[in-house]
Amino acid sequence: MSLEPTIETDRLLDELQQLAAISDCPEPPPAVTRVVFTETDLKARAYLQGLYEDAGLTVRVDPIGNTFARWCPPSADADAPAVGTGSHCDAIPHAGMYDGTVGVLGGLEAIRALQREGFEPKRPIEVVMFTSEEPTRFGIGCSGSRAIAGVLSPEDLVKLTDDDGDDFDTVRQRAGFTGDLADVKLAEDHYHAWTELHIEQGPKLEKQNMPIGIVMGIAAPATFVFHVTGEGGHAGGVLMPERKDALCAAAEAIHSIEQFARSSPSPDLVATVGELDVFPGAVNSIPSKVRFTLDLRDTDADNRDQIAQAIHEDCNEMGLRRGVTITSETLNADPPAACDKAVIDAIEKACNDADLRWWKMVSRAYHDSLFMARLAPTGMIFIPCRDGVSHRPDEFSSPNEISAGVEVLALTLAELASS
Amino acid sequence: MSLEPTIETDRLLDELQQLAAISDCPEPPPAVTRVVFTETDLKARAYLQGLYEDAGLTVRVDPIGNTFARWCPPSADADAPAVGTGSHCDAIPHAGMYDGTVGVLGGLEAIRALQREGFEPKRPIEVVMFTSEEPTRFGIGCSGSRAIAGVLSPEDLVKLTDDDGDDFDTVRQRAGFTGDLADVKLAEDHYHAWTELHIEQGPKLEKQNMPIGIVMGIAAPATFVFHVTGEGGHAGGVLMPERKDALCAAAEAIHSIEQFARSSPSPDLVATVGELDVFPGAVNSIPSKVRFTLDLRDTDADNRDQIAQAIHEDCNEMGLRRGVTITSETLNADPPAACDKAVIDAIEKACNDADLRWWKMVSRAYHDSLFMARLAPTGMIFIPCRDGVSHRPDEFSSPNEISAGVEVLALTLAELASS
Repeated sequence: MSLEPTIETDRLLDELQQLAAISDCPEPPPAVTRVVFTETDLKARAYLQGLYEDAGLTVRVDPIGNTFARWCPPSADADAPAVGTGSHCDAIPHAGMYDGTVGVLGGLEAIRALQREGFEPKRPIEVVMFTSEEPTRFGIGCSGSRAIAGVLSPEDLVKLTDDDGDDFDTVRQRAGFTGDLADVKLAEDHYHAWTELHIEQGPKLEKQNMPIGIVMGIAAPATFVFHVTGEGGHAGGVLMPERKDALCAAAEAIHSIEQFARSSPSPDLVATVGELDVFPGAVNSIPSKVRFTLDLRDTDADNRDQIAQAIHEDCNEMGLRRGVTITSETLNADPPAACDKAVIDAIEKACNDADLRWWKMVSRAYHDSLFMARLAPTGMIFIPCRDGVSHRPDEFSSPNEISAGVEVLALTLAELASS
Repeated sequence: MSLEPTIETDRLLDELQQLAAISDCPEPPPAVTRVVFTETDLKARAYLQGLYEDAGLTVRVDPIGNTFARWCPPSADADAPAVGTGSHCDAIPHAGMYDGTVGVLGGLEAIRALQREGFEPKRPIEVVMFTSEEPTRFGIGCSGSRAIAGVLSPEDLVKLTDDDGDDFDTVRQRAGFTGDLADVKLAEDHYHAWTELHIEQGPKLEKQNMPIGIVMGIAAPATFVFHVTGEGGHAGGVLMPERKDALCAAAEAIHSIEQFARSSPSPDLVATVGELDVFPGAVNSIPSKVRFTLDLRDTDADNRDQIAQAIHEDCNEMGLRRGVTITSETLNADPPAACDKAVIDAIEKACNDADLRWWKMVSRAYHDSLFMARLAPTGMIFIPCRDGVSHRPDEFSSPNEISAGVEVLALTLAELASS
């Protein structure tokens, strides 16, 4: 096979721009906000559907909105396990325009490039857009891919609620996604192999001046919610020694979490308190309650769990000392995923065929592929992003970097679909 | 004069209960939320208006909703400076039912008690309900009394904005309050004397087993807003040493503010961070911006200002060390108010006439009287509240304590209106 797919980079960039314009962010693109099951999310889905149809793909939307666009030309055995690729299109508030979208629109462009080359796959090739990779609305990331992999059961899905108190089932039906939640989980043999193209969301490829990262494993994230309960009161009415201020306790906890993370034996451990709500939240009122989240991830799951344990013990001790109650619940503590040797090899071969240097690395960010790895042999292709920045409007990968990633993806899909 | 006013305590408590039921709090009374210029605030105002009219008082509403209910029987010189009393009816989110309301409904009951006794005042007596004593909506407390006293000019009033970005002028007009803002400031000779009945919002009277506190001065509060700007990013994408996490910086600042307050030379100094907002506020996103408020108050204005200075210097140093920017703005830094000897004497005489023990004290909480003191000779009457608790649903003063406070208020108003 001497496949040399040509990537239509200008067209792909235009599609990324058009998708970025479908946003709830008050600022213009590249600032993007696109939360799952909002009107804006539905508009983005409709835009993608049009592109899929233009490419002659067959679209299937599952009961929670995961969208499968399938290329099954006459050369392919329609009953054979497919080769899958894809990512997500939802975006946290005030995020950038490349996270996830490069894997969805890039996956589509990879298929179109193979079509233009006259490539004849022996298996169907699917590009997937997952529902709710971001945890913004329901507090848990990757709900779509978790459900596909059977990690999140229909019973657990309906327990998820958003800030308005509406449950996942109600919200998805209101957005027009119906059908039996039990039908979301895919069969073990649905995919022959899975690969995802994604921006690195870290600085390593750029620092190494490497166009392609081949992911060997995906780090193990854990998410917790802490509830601090102290005693409120009027800001002028309670002297300092008599206070049980929930925010002062939370501030001490966050300061201490940062110290634990900075002094971790594993340099890859990162701890992030990303959400914090104060109750009652008035300028002249002593906070009686604080809720905050903790996202803890490491390539070393044991170290992550040890740090989590140390943080929880420290919070208990501090709560006793201050006379406040600190409780926590574990939202998720997923095991890490190892990528599959055959898929890694296919990506490596694709890089060599495209004459692109590659570097083997670990993903510290969460991806749908973490869960797809439970279902199918999985790999990930990373491309550099400027300064390692992500989840911000200035998130950026250059046209050349994106084009290189899509070329490697196309060659990888071709390799995996050739037998 | 051997005035022995009888307080109709059951009726007053029923009115307090009915007012408490006009609330936006999801919990039932005694939990109360009543934010200025909301539908609920307007309903509360309508309820009061009905009570004023039943008592034969003449009601005037100024251009920002400060409401003056005037008793001017034939005995009184309608042109003479009035004796004023009153307080506020707005309530911070999830507050209690006695803060402010005891001074408004108690002021009305004091006038009704004098009417029932056949007392003939030589001056008009007014009960006032101030707009927006609480800073919940516009970030600054006592906007109504500030404007009455000329401390907040019409130009400054229209600069105030709420969380929706709507300015004070727009919001008040939407709520139906019109007229020239320049007409809010009262003439220097409008009041002959001013007194306010209020729950203590602290534990001292209860601990001393004293039914009445006579306020000698009102502490000097200062309010600041801090803006912390760091760098955001994906929770998995940036290693700890490379982070400029705005929330970690804010947590260190809050921890440090607490230390400064606890080690203050003046034991009366209290520091409260009551509001904190995280941006972008997603579980897997490093906070790039944090906004928090600081309420600092002390009976010793110099000490308060020294601590404020130390906190600001500490924040600057910490910001430099962390590579984040920390700026602050002063929302207000009001001087303390001393109460007037003649009004203090009138309250003391009233206590003695009512055979109630009294205790002279300082108010550490903010009150409209702080600003009324700029306009008129001022005093305040405190009654105990259980455990010193305020701004919480379990805020409580007993029927006997409220009744005693209203009796002293009635006798004080009578004394001040007798010459």
